[in-house]
Amino acid sequence: MPDQDTVLWSCEDGVATLTLNRPDSLNALTPEMEERWTELLERAAEDPDVRAIVVTGAGRGFCAGADMNFMDDMTSGRIDATGNGSDPTFVGARPHVAATIPKPVIAAINGACAGLGLVHALFCDVRFAADDAKITTAFVRRGLIAEYGISWVLPKVAGLSTALDLLVSGRVILGEEAHRLRLVDHVYPRERVLEEAQRYARELAQFCAPRSIATMKQQVYRDILSELEPAVQHAEELMRESIVGPDFAEGIQSYIEKRPPRFPAFVAGA
Amino acid sequence: MPDQDTVLWSCEDGVATLTLNRPDSLNALTPEMEERWTELLERAAEDPDVRAIVVTGAGRGFCAGADMNFMDDMTSGRIDATGNGSDPTFVGARPHVAATIPKPVIAAINGACAGLGLVHALFCDVRFAADDAKITTAFVRRGLIAEYGISWVLPKVAGLSTALDLLVSGRVILGEEAHRLRLVDHVYPRERVLEEAQRYARELAQFCAPRSIATMKQQVYRDILSELEPAVQHAEELMRESIVGPDFAEGIQSYIEKRPPRFPAFVAGA
Amino acid sequence: MPDQDTVLWSCEDGVATLTLNRPDSLNALTPEMEERWTELLERAAEDPDVRAIVVTGAGRGFCAGADMNFMDDMTSGRIDATGNGSDPTFVGARPHVAATIPKPVIAAINGACAGLGLVHALFCDVRFAADDAKITTAFVRRGLIAEYGISWVLPKVAGLSTALDLLVSGRVILGEEAHRLRLVDHVYPRERVLEEAQRYARELAQFCAPRSIATMKQQVYRDILSELEPAVQHAEELMRESIVGPDFAEGIQSYIEKRPPRFPAFVAGA
Repeated sequence: MPDQDTVLWSCEDGVATLTLNRPDSLNALTPEMEERWTELLERAAEDPDVRAIVVTGAGRGFCAGADMNFMDDMTSGRIDATGNGSDPTFVGARPHVAATIPKPVIAAINGACAGLGLVHALFCDVRFAADDAKITTAFVRRGLIAEYGISWVLPKVAGLSTALDLLVSGRVILGEEAHRLRLVDHVYPRERVLEEAQRYARELAQFCAPRSIATMKQQVYRDILSELEPAVQHAEELMRESIVGPDFAEGIQSYIEKRPPRFPAFVAGA
Repeated sequence: MPDQDTVLWSCEDGVATLTLNRPDSLNALTPEMEERWTELLERAAEDPDVRAIVVTGAGRGFCAGADMNFMDDMTSGRIDATGNGSDPTFVGARPHVAATIPKPVIAAINGACAGLGLVHALFCDVRFAADDAKITTAFVRRGLIAEYGISWVLPKVAGLSTALDLLVSGRVILGEEAHRLRLVDHVYPRERVLEEAQRYARELAQFCAPRSIATMKQQVYRDILSELEPAVQHAEELMRESIVGPDFAEGIQSYIEKRPPRFPAFVAGA
Repeated sequence: MPDQDTVLWSCEDGVATLTLNRPDSLNALTPEMEERWTELLERAAEDPDVRAIVVTGAGRGFCAGADMNFMDDMTSGRIDATGNGSDPTFVGARPHVAATIPKPVIAAINGACAGLGLVHALFCDVRFAADDAKITTAFVRRGLIAEYGISWVLPKVAGLSTALDLLVSGRVILGEEAHRLRLVDHVYPRERVLEEAQRYARELAQFCAPRSIATMKQQVYRDILSELEPAVQHAEELMRESIVGPDFAEGIQSYIEKRPPRFPAFVAGA
């Protein structure tokens, strides 16, 4: 199965690492990679040994976006990209799936991150970036639109004005500016980005209740369009459930005993 | 009434100061304190002498969250925390009440601020913090969920990604980082936080029209889920009312005469 | 037509520059200026030679807000400001029109920017400001409300807490702080603000597809109140259209040939 090597999987200390692996093309995405990406996120969601997920790129880049050769094939008609023909999968890329995974997904943006690659990164929960990583929405300079939900997520992450600035200009920013603009949460020298993201993920795996994380992600995304009072009421219902559950008892007990908690695994759909 | 001493009240120059007062427990909240807190906010709303409200903590901390001894009692069954039994008040903490008070509520985060304490701070209109104050959502490390509306308010204050970062990790940040992440609006050395918050509050009491503030808080919270056109139209209706009212005449007059304005008090429900 | 000189128009290299031109009053707005402003924005939208719009102020200020002499006339009854009488246009100022223009609107805040002037700036897509420009919402200190949609747009641009801070206090901030608070996207020494905004606009005119920009502005404003899944689906539909259109072909072709793209003009309604 050589296709599967385009996205690598490894797992250690409760942290699954997914690596986009076409380094010669700065990990530009093909339909097969998109499919594999989603499969591996779902595998991570179902695997009780996985408590946090790190996604990164092999080589110098994180992800240069959709593969341009493939794009060129589309515009010249060699591939039908409208979704009605030979290859509907590309159009079907679903970077926002990461937001629905009930485990924390952390992007380690080790280098260039553009177009569809940036949408993938933005739907992760937390972003670490190299201070010199080149980051751009790119779409406007190719005659494209705000793809795959970036017009939804970017204003929520970085504010309305930064979103418009980066979308309508397609300008390239470095990791450092992305940090100042709130596109990324943590910035490090390139050689440390992956290890720092994994360190953060390991801390989540060790100290944070998996069921709490699953609930919180749902709450945050649900509350975006909720009135205040219903959001508070919903939180109260969830709290009533949580304080009679085993995680809270263990959370308090471990706190009082000053030891790391032993929270049970959370498996999606279980 | 010794219970009332758990939250202190003072009022000077139009500024009411509410002080959480269980310093030996870093002002960890009990059901009685929550009740008293809400009572005093409502008293401030109704008192015509109060034009701005500052909330702070006695001693080294702002608020360590829900009292852990009480929490331990809940998990061990000595207190029924489901709200159906002996003590429904705790579950009924309503930190978001601050957002409905028609006067400005300013948090002076003088020290540690965790869990439920942070939710209280986030529903204040403006936050001042000590640069070395330890701030954390904490919930995920106790097996809890995003409580009391924090999943609603935190993304609106600090953005989607910062909210997820702080909720799923429960990591501790200092006031300085909280300022960079936009969780707090103003940061000062610990010994000056309360006086700076009170200075800001006094300026509001002196220069800002109470009725304008009441209307503005409602507008901001209402417009969060409003389409653009209706929000603009609503503002136009409110403006038509305001420009024929006495506050605007005094606002213009005092501006022209280069003197401080004398705006009348605004009393909730009056 | 001397009224038309209150807002100047010039156009060069695909960039239209609109200049508020009552420098003796720091460009304080009159009903005629508001009308002229909207007319010129619509002219820019329809002009195929215009690809980006810069708005700025003549002299030392950007815009001091609504003209105070006019305001004084209103409160003293010499002009009927309720919209039912002699001069309904002033109340009808519509700064949010800039957000509906299908071309990028860039504010060059060259100096003082207050009240209604700030609302105009905030509904631009991108803001450049002088580092020493005085910026304030002002309304609360005149007994007014959050006017013309500022309670809608300010929290989306700068976050809920910054919006409340600036609205309820009416405090004056400088361009530098406005940049830190995310009210403005780019900050420069005063003498360079206009040229930098125009340079940015020229880059958009040269490299960015006009139809893409028009679509993206609509997406961003539409997605604010959209659920995630429908926003993603809507983007997918727009993408299917875009990848069979001429802009995408030119975008890819110019990318492969390493030359600037030649995107066709986009005309509103055409």
